[in-house]
Amino acid sequence: MTADDRRLLPLSAATRPLFAGVDLGGTNIKGAIVDDAGRVVAFHTEPTLAARGPEDAVARMGRAVHALAAQAGVAVTDIARVGVGSPGPLDIPAGKIVRAGNLPGWENFPLRDRLALHTGRAVTFANDANAAAYGEYWVGGGRGASSLVLLTLGTGVGGGIIISDVNVEGAHSHGSECGHIVVDPSPTARMCPCGQRGHLEAYASATSVKAMASEALAVGGAGELAAAVASGEEITPILVARAAGVGDDVARGVLMEAARWLGIGIVSLMHAIDPEIVLLGGAMTFGREENPVGRAFIERVREEVRRRAFPVLAAATAIRYAGLGGDAGSIGAAGLARLDHRRS
Amino acid sequence: MTADDRRLLPLSAATRPLFAGVDLGGTNIKGAIVDDAGRVVAFHTEPTLAARGPEDAVARMGRAVHALAAQAGVAVTDIARVGVGSPGPLDIPAGKIVRAGNLPGWENFPLRDRLALHTGRAVTFANDANAAAYGEYWVGGGRGASSLVLLTLGTGVGGGIIISDVNVEGAHSHGSECGHIVVDPSPTARMCPCGQRGHLEAYASATSVKAMASEALAVGGAGELAAAVASGEEITPILVARAAGVGDDVARGVLMEAARWLGIGIVSLMHAIDPEIVLLGGAMTFGREENPVGRAFIERVREEVRRRAFPVLAAATAIRYAGLGGDAGSIGAAGLARLDHRRS
Repeated sequence: MTADDRRLLPLSAATRPLFAGVDLGGTNIKGAIVDDAGRVVAFHTEPTLAARGPEDAVARMGRAVHALAAQAGVAVTDIARVGVGSPGPLDIPAGKIVRAGNLPGWENFPLRDRLALHTGRAVTFANDANAAAYGEYWVGGGRGASSLVLLTLGTGVGGGIIISDVNVEGAHSHGSECGHIVVDPSPTARMCPCGQRGHLEAYASATSVKAMASEALAVGGAGELAAAVASGEEITPILVARAAGVGDDVARGVLMEAARWLGIGIVSLMHAIDPEIVLLGGAMTFGREENPVGRAFIERVREEVRRRAFPVLAAATAIRYAGLGGDAGSIGAAGLARLDHRRS
Repeated sequence: MTADDRRLLPLSAATRPLFAGVDLGGTNIKGAIVDDAGRVVAFHTEPTLAARGPEDAVARMGRAVHALAAQAGVAVTDIARVGVGSPGPLDIPAGKIVRAGNLPGWENFPLRDRLALHTGRAVTFANDANAAAYGEYWVGGGRGASSLVLLTLGTGVGGGIIISDVNVEGAHSHGSECGHIVVDPSPTARMCPCGQRGHLEAYASATSVKAMASEALAVGGAGELAAAVASGEEITPILVARAAGVGDDVARGVLMEAARWLGIGIVSLMHAIDPEIVLLGGAMTFGREENPVGRAFIERVREEVRRRAFPVLAAATAIRYAGLGGDAGSIGAAGLARLDHRRS
């Protein structure tokens, strides 16, 4: 869903109660007010400015919730509960961010309780990828499925698993670190940003696609990608996809290699938990199936799954692109707030 | 738990309702009557005689339930519900065994409904490894944990995942085919009995330990294992463990190699679902931690996990041997029947 596609539900048509969802990203804080049927009544975005520290960010998140309420035409007290999705590592039972990359001041920040103070509402706290997975499960590409895995292919590879309306958040708040399943056990496997070798993220993230493209160009290459780089363009997955789209063999090879490893990781997930659907989201979706590169990428994933999975599962498990784009996190955070509200 | 350790609860001390669990194995049908707190009131075993066909087997299963009731001193109608764990592949919503290896006559056998007819009780139908996982979760090695993975190391590698009292049975009845997660993606990876390469079962089952030991002896070996084989003994995991226990390097190398691959697979499971506990059960438990070989085996698993998992997860996730031995399946099947009974 692009910003232009966002059709907002008029408040008069909304089914109460209402929920707010906030997705804390490295660049932006995205918020949404969602009705009981998962329809969006308001969207709002604020810059995160993470370097200013978590108190500044949580104040912005609180302002976002107030702005959302104003935009929707309701009082903040009309919001039954607020959900927030945050990058990890988290301590979910404690409601805390354990740390935020190398940013100072974020260690053990009690985001859940601070946001509750800023909004006056009870807050549900989740991993950002799990919130996005719940959004896709509730009203996105997995709507109607009993279970799904969402893999978000961005700077890293995130993951969320939803089974029968349960968000698999993990016993130690690390549920669905699917980017760190082992796909290559060899001692020469690619190094993962987490510091260990052979994890899926080392092969199927935007970061790894950039690295693999650089390495491929270093040993030669005369096509579109080499020319773009020679002219000073930075290697990005978008550039790689553009070059692949005009037939550049190096670019195409890199994307197919990333897709192959993604397929290997997906087979392990399918055999472990047997989800109804596997969704691919994030930046590395290459225009989705409507675009020839996006279609070739996901077809290569499916091909690898057919090679390695039980035939009955390869045939029965849908693998497709996610549906909500960058709004999955905020909508899903609202959905998780709704789950807690209904259980309380 | 061995047969000698089985302390039965007197009926007078049992908390109603009572549940019966039946574990359909290749050799034996094992049954138990369990009270509402998971304490066993009666055990009973019948031979499976699978070659006689499924109607004969289900009649034996029915007889087992009647024998259990008689042993416990209750009427069959005092059993609130019956649970059955069956080898797969299954169609759980339909209550059917899809097939049973290459045995004729078992295709699409409606085990759930046939057992309901033989017992007059409602029947809960589950995969055998999932039933065993639930038994360990309820009253075994995972008692008190919020979630667990059980890997059963036998002829194959089975798996069961329980999260917050939910048995992950899968969208296509293939939940927790953990033996088929990909541990080695290389084209020369070991062949799995399922027909595809590089799955965990190809490295960490009794079958694969036998194969790896044979291969190791074929290239030479002068220790206990070679001598035993030269004297006509068949290679089994028990023989390999015995040889490893007296310092045979070939035997020890094979067990450590199986443990290494098991650790790789466990890392993927930990990063995907972050269970509180990982349990190892089945035939390949080598006398558990009390035995030096069993201790060395599981220590090698833990070492591989420390090498490849997030340090926080490697430190926080218990990896240990399962607690209920061969009774996990029948006790767990009764536990799953109890879940359905409470939800109905």
